Amino acid sequence: MDNQPLILITNDDGVTAPGIAALVQSMKSLGHVVVVAPDSPQSGMGHAITMNHPLRMERVHVFDKVEAYQCSGTPADCVKLAVDKVMHRRPDLLVSGINHGSNSSINVIYSGTMSAAVEGAIEGISAIGFSLNDYKFDADFEASSYYARLIASRVLEKGLPTGTLLNVNIPALGLPDIKGLKICRQAKAKWIEEFDERTDPHNRKYYWLTGKFVNNDHGEDTDEWALANGFVSVVPTQFDLTAHHAIATLNTWEF
Amino acid sequence: MDNQPLILITNDDGVTAPGIAALVQSMKSLGHVVVVAPDSPQSGMGHAITMNHPLRMERVHVFDKVEAYQCSGTPADCVKLAVDKVMHRRPDLLVSGINHGSNSSINVIYSGTMSAAVEGAIEGISAIGFSLNDYKFDADFEASSYYARLIASRVLEKGLPTGTLLNVNIPALGLPDIKGLKICRQAKAKWIEEFDERTDPHNRKYYWLTGKFVNNDHGEDTDEWALANGFVSVVPTQFDLTAHHAIATLNTWEF
Repeated sequence: MDNQPLILITNDDGVTAPGIAALVQSMKSLGHVVVVAPDSPQSGMGHAITMNHPLRMERVHVFDKVEAYQCSGTPADCVKLAVDKVMHRRPDLLVSGINHGSNSSINVIYSGTMSAAVEGAIEGISAIGFSLNDYKFDADFEASSYYARLIASRVLEKGLPTGTLLNVNIPALGLPDIKGLKICRQAKAKWIEEFDERTDPHNRKYYWLTGKFVNNDHGEDTDEWALANGFVSVVPTQFDLTAHHAIATLNTWEF
Repeated sequence: MDNQPLILITNDDGVTAPGIAALVQSMKSLGHVVVVAPDSPQSGMGHAITMNHPLRMERVHVFDKVEAYQCSGTPADCVKLAVDKVMHRRPDLLVSGINHGSNSSINVIYSGTMSAAVEGAIEGISAIGFSLNDYKFDADFEASSYYARLIASRVLEKGLPTGTLLNVNIPALGLPDIKGLKICRQAKAKWIEEFDERTDPHNRKYYWLTGKFVNNDHGEDTDEWALANGFVSVVPTQFDLTAHHAIATLNTWEF
């Protein structure tokens, strides 16, 4: 090992996804890179961890001259395994992604990409999740790679405030068309579920999750506003879920 | 339907767990109860949702005179399906649990019980997750049931502050030994991973997730303090993960 920053990379689309290849490439110039990522897609896994069955992990040769492992678990499992069994010291930075699809606003809750970054932050590692607002397998990661490298280098230089990580989303635009980046808050948006009910050949019902994204938050300080207006959104994110402002209200209740 | 409050009940231990039976029993006197719960245990599922395969849901007869369904998905899936396909109007209350095991401090992040409550809150429903600090299948739910009913009746009466839900944990004590309840913040505690590495009969390695819970937060306003001192802990919890205090700091960085 040398004196370079140690950078752990993971994702939720799996170790063979183009997005993680772009992220590995963009981090190589910033430090010593190690990859521990799921062996299959894990989108929508939220902060799931695997307790009831064992995990597999094996070395793979996917990236040129980069130590990489695939793991049978969730993104959060990958981070836990990496920290305990792979890394020889605490990483200086954890980056997750680049996700194929947005993790802005309420999507942070459902996102495997972000759960990996949250897990890193819980472990005390500076952590960033990157997502490109484009679901296509062959999406263009050029602008995302540029911003990933820019933001990661600032985080390595400055460190993040205690207990925070970054949720970075990149609009599906070419690099010259992106207007810059904005520090934002998570928009108050949500999904309206519309399950698609079908009947199988054995006459039993089944349901596909589908939904409509609804943003009723018109604040110009939100991630949704930034993305809709051509900016990269950067939301400082925390894992203290306490609604501190509600404590005083609840203390007025009689029990 | 009548004018009683409509109460949706779910959990992450599955529809046949004793904890949900206790919760159904304790809610019956507060309103009209409907159960939509996983058909198998879903502990540690965090906020996972099921997008890549379809869900099954079927009516079951598990509770006396209570409309109940089991669903093949995660706790968050159960809430989404219930709201879209089962309930004829928006429930007045969603209660999740009673979980067999604590969901205090950082466990809120990994908890299926709490993800169901969070999903309810995102849907705009007053929501509470209840967890008993006892993993045993035959745990005594008497005190938990008493506090679940007490807290749920207050929430029905007063409503919760917008964007918040409650994370309620009950110590493993008899009702006379519980000192009351405390409104708390989430303690800054974490798990230190210690994967148990083994070798299978085919000479391949596998890993069991195990860990040690470490609480370095000595605040007397935390959920861990309340539980250790014989109180029920009530943490107002939110799904806006923005670290608002960090926005100003990040705005001083040059990009």
